[in-house]
Amino acid sequence: MTAFIDETTNVLRRTPQVLRALLAGLPESWTDTTDVPENGWRPHDVVGHLITGELTDWIDRTQRILEHGTDMPFDKFERFAHEDRDADATLDDLVEHFARLRAENLARLDELVSDEDLDRRGMHPSLGEVTLRELLATWAVHDLDHVSQIYAGMAGSHDAEVGPWKAYLGILLRRDDPAAVAG
Amino acid sequence: MTAFIDETTNVLRRTPQVLRALLAGLPESWTDTTDVPENGWRPHDVVGHLITGELTDWIDRTQRILEHGTDMPFDKFERFAHEDRDADATLDDLVEHFARLRAENLARLDELVSDEDLDRRGMHPSLGEVTLRELLATWAVHDLDHVSQIYAGMAGSHDAEVGPWKAYLGILLRRDDPAAVAG
Repeated sequence: MTAFIDETTNVLRRTPQVLRALLAGLPESWTDTTDVPENGWRPHDVVGHLITGELTDWIDRTQRILEHGTDMPFDKFERFAHEDRDADATLDDLVEHFARLRAENLARLDELVSDEDLDRRGMHPSLGEVTLRELLATWAVHDLDHVSQIYAGMAGSHDAEVGPWKAYLGILLRRDDPAAVAG
Repeated sequence: MTAFIDETTNVLRRTPQVLRALLAGLPESWTDTTDVPENGWRPHDVVGHLITGELTDWIDRTQRILEHGTDMPFDKFERFAHEDRDADATLDDLVEHFARLRAENLARLDELVSDEDLDRRGMHPSLGEVTLRELLATWAVHDLDHVSQIYAGMAGSHDAEVGPWKAYLGILLRRDDPAAVAG
């Protein structure tokens, strides 16, 4: 296993543990607020979206690259697939579902990909040619991007409670104005 | 213990566990980048800053409110105290130091504060009058704000590796332009 694959899966393996540490049993007073006020996502939506990636995106695209190269573009990532699918699941259920899928997918990745595959190319339906290396790096950074949304939602749930300290808390100021700078 | 104290300490208790799950033993390729390109903080700086809060801020201010009310303003939060203090510590050392301090401070909080104290007031040196309830909510949201910076730095370390996918990754786009919107 190359340093690249090892270091990328190192982060991918952590995400379920981080989500458990952050969310398992967390009171709803912290989890019922969206990351941004308009069209934002609650932690429940974020974990659902991460589940969609495990179900239909990352490993499917890896296989597409290995089997078809640039000849067959990837399927689109269904960004709102979680809305109907997960409507009745609790947040804790979703975290455990995600953890199972992630473990299965990392085992699949280990079977499928080795060092010499990383420069193989696939075809993104909008972005054009991409490499398997870029796909795997994106898988990890996509985790970081979306887990960050959970932090913004959790902070937002206590926007009023911090009183005048809001002026110093960039995570709250940016929910109202993305370019805001904390005092 | 009120719901408020219970729900606030619920988040405060998680932060060391989240930092361990995210950072313990993480390769330097993920941890050596700042959250924003100019004057940003690496994860090492962020955890150092959280340690400063435990050493000098949150419990000290709680005691100041309980003992002096609004008569004696809080000391200022030394935002860069970590720079000299932690220069030789590893990131893993800092996470464990933070975990010990946080556990001690939550035990202190439990001894010091009960329901009927939450509306007691103190004097912030810049913000003016604040309540103990606001201080405790800020302690938790301050954790969320700074742990978010760790995510931005980790993502930023792989800004180049994701290739064209950067256009979809808000966490990377916002490092260059805070008002950027992912495609």
